[in-house]
Amino acid sequence: MFSAQWRLCSLNSTAKFLTINSSKILGLPTSAKMSLKITNAKRIEGLDSNVWIEFTKLAADPSVVNLGQGLPDISPPIYVKEKLSKIAAIDSLNQYTRGFGHPSLVKALACLYEKFYQNQINPNKEILVTVGAYGSLFNAIQGLIDEGDEVIIIMPFYDCYEPMVRMAGATPVFIPLRSVSLISMGDELHSGTSSSALGMDFLQLLAHNYLTFFFSLSYSATFPGMWERTITIGSAGKTFSVTGWKLGWSVGPHHLIKHLQTVQQNTIYTCATPLQEALAQALWIDIKRMDDPECYFNSLPKELEVKRDRMIHLLENLGLKPIVPDGGYFIIADVSLLDADLSGMKDSNEPYDYKFVKWMTKNKKLSAIPVSAFCNTETKLQFEKFVRFCFIKKDSTLDAAEEIIKAWTGQKS
Amino acid sequence: MFSAQWRLCSLNSTAKFLTINSSKILGLPTSAKMSLKITNAKRIEGLDSNVWIEFTKLAADPSVVNLGQGLPDISPPIYVKEKLSKIAAIDSLNQYTRGFGHPSLVKALACLYEKFYQNQINPNKEILVTVGAYGSLFNAIQGLIDEGDEVIIIMPFYDCYEPMVRMAGATPVFIPLRSVSLISMGDELHSGTSSSALGMDFLQLLAHNYLTFFFSLSYSATFPGMWERTITIGSAGKTFSVTGWKLGWSVGPHHLIKHLQTVQQNTIYTCATPLQEALAQALWIDIKRMDDPECYFNSLPKELEVKRDRMIHLLENLGLKPIVPDGGYFIIADVSLLDADLSGMKDSNEPYDYKFVKWMTKNKKLSAIPVSAFCNTETKLQFEKFVRFCFIKKDSTLDAAEEIIKAWTGQKS
Ligand SMILES: Cc1ncc(COP(=O)(O)O)c(C=O)c1O
Ligand SMILES: Cc1ncc(COP(=O)(O)O)c(C=O)c1O
Repeated sequence: MFSAQWRLCSLNSTAKFLTINSSKILGLPTSAKMSLKITNAKRIEGLDSNVWIEFTKLAADPSVVNLGQGLPDISPPIYVKEKLSKIAAIDSLNQYTRGFGHPSLVKALACLYEKFYQNQINPNKEILVTVGAYGSLFNAIQGLIDEGDEVIIIMPFYDCYEPMVRMAGATPVFIPLRSVSLISMGDELHSGTSSSALGMDFLQLLAHNYLTFFFSLSYSATFPGMWERTITIGSAGKTFSVTGWKLGWSVGPHHLIKHLQTVQQNTIYTCATPLQEALAQALWIDIKRMDDPECYFNSLPKELEVKRDRMIHLLENLGLKPIVPDGGYFIIADVSLLDADLSGMKDSNEPYDYKFVKWMTKNKKLSAIPVSAFCNTETKLQFEKFVRFCFIKKDSTLDAAEEIIKAWTGQKS
Repeated sequence: MFSAQWRLCSLNSTAKFLTINSSKILGLPTSAKMSLKITNAKRIEGLDSNVWIEFTKLAADPSVVNLGQGLPDISPPIYVKEKLSKIAAIDSLNQYTRGFGHPSLVKALACLYEKFYQNQINPNKEILVTVGAYGSLFNAIQGLIDEGDEVIIIMPFYDCYEPMVRMAGATPVFIPLRSVSLISMGDELHSGTSSSALGMDFLQLLAHNYLTFFFSLSYSATFPGMWERTITIGSAGKTFSVTGWKLGWSVGPHHLIKHLQTVQQNTIYTCATPLQEALAQALWIDIKRMDDPECYFNSLPKELEVKRDRMIHLLENLGLKPIVPDGGYFIIADVSLLDADLSGMKDSNEPYDYKFVKWMTKNKKLSAIPVSAFCNTETKLQFEKFVRFCFIKKDSTLDAAEEIIKAWTGQKS
């Protein structure tokens, strides 16, 4: 029978056991059986634990109200979903597209970022579409960082930076950000509630005196002289509240982006076509109405501000003093004020916040993310009293959280 | 203003230039400006050329009939597209799912592979969903192969194996496959037109005497004792003719798969949810009717057999002696028989097949892929007379190819 799909290829690692050459393989098999001892490659040694996997599993119980992972349960814009529905029916948009980014998507992104940077962006050379922001971070680190390099990571940090840097054989250098207060853990670095000046100064100092390049999800590429040394990363998850699309992008000068492109062509080659086309079409809708309050880039922040204030209020009711963020959709708070009795928690070696979140998930049916997950081993202790709550949640989820918190404060008083 | 989406993080490689510590960064900026010299990481040195990018660009001219990249222009099954259309409207299916594979998809895949292997497969431990077959290959190589390892690659090979192995710091050992004839370049390894015995023998010999592990898109995991050392890779592109979905998977024993999972969680974390759910639902349709001729796993090979025979016929008309494949959707043929006048081709250092395909694309408006792209530098010469034609094309595309070939033979005679 003619078989359509199953093909055969082979690859093999033998050097740990024997040196081979082709004549030996083809002509003269050794009779000694090797034992089947297959270990991981050294580059991933010790990189198998992951805060999302651990805490997402805990929160999977449907009776738990999950304020952990940054997973919107609000509806994404209707036109984003509709675009994907329509595009799925078009044959050619279910096939491979350009490896560095679907043509219509890189064009839309160039147009969007030109508005921020006020200079021209070449869609084919200065943009790369990746598998989420994760994919951009990975491509950048693999493409630009050598074994033995040192990489500055400002703490607390989004957890994947550390294993990604280690996987590249480089050494992270952690800088605790005491002089710059934090607004929301895992991704934000801002100067507290009043102004952003301190954060900017710090970054400018860092950038102009030390950095050879710089990854950013924010405004830093707009500093004078910074475009040349900055890779700006964004994602569909953050832009349109569709985290499940796993589409992201890197924007920057070609002399940096080209190395990320090389990594992409040797790792995944290209991203999903229907999602890219749908994202492009959705972006155009909002690019054309950026001054309109209906534009999602304007309406989402408004919607989130209300949710933030409600969450702040809830946490204050519980007796906490949450740090009020200016952006993003996370709030952190020192939970040691609650005096939870964690003596029953099994793994007593874990940081306080890990134990607290596990206790809260089990006993209060409310889950969150421990902030010490975003710190290196040495500084975990400084942050272990903090827990991160995600507030990009629909009203019924926030209602359920409110119920839990009311019952909890009732018990306390 | 409250900003919803733009967040800031920074990462930096400085070790090439200076050693830093945090107090130095925070307190005492150096005044010496560094020059902005950013080079690629060593691991990607020389890995920036790519046959797909080069030849897909050439074939992008709409007047060219493209038989190059393995890109189906037949319609994917209607229910595959409909599932995606419907799923796009469901909010929760536009958000993050389980990192190692969407629960309903790993369940469907386990059920499908249990039918092939006749033993139980644990969907969470023995399956990993990846960004295409590419993603599986990359995860396996990064997760299992160390710097300095040697990796056997049987030639001709799918082109990404070599740069992926080099990116891992390992050395490819190329084995020319003279004793096993080839059916279709880039992915197949079979024993010519009659039986598969030679290929099997060869693989068994290789496997039992030399290999510590083994990647396969075929039946090799079913050999006695081979499950433990084999990773079987598949993709939605090959299964349902939706190459643009870029969904693939690895199936194998947990002691291997767990290392691929570790790579995944530190590179892209998770794959697109709506595509995974749509693929799962589509798989169930066909898993439930595997004995039915309507089942796509049965109907696609039938459809392809007709297309293969037509393409063979066309190439024979041109005076070629194509190698008739038993599977897949590619045909190779020695094109030196055509005596094309390539003297006008610019880059005279290129292999014959590269020049031939460029000449054919320009002068005949027909494109294909040079087979020497699937060989290492030393053996390119052995294969440079061969060109690969893709035949998973709708009738109108094959009609257009026929027109071109008729005109061509008319000119010749
Ligand atoms: C700072 C930061 N980096 C990376 C990511 C991952 O984004 P994606 O899902 O697009 O890969 C997130 C998501 O929360 C993030 O906040
Ligand atoms: C042998 C082989 N490996 C990998 C791939 C890439 O597959 P995907 O697009 O699913 O990543 C292909 C596609 O043609 C292939 O034939």
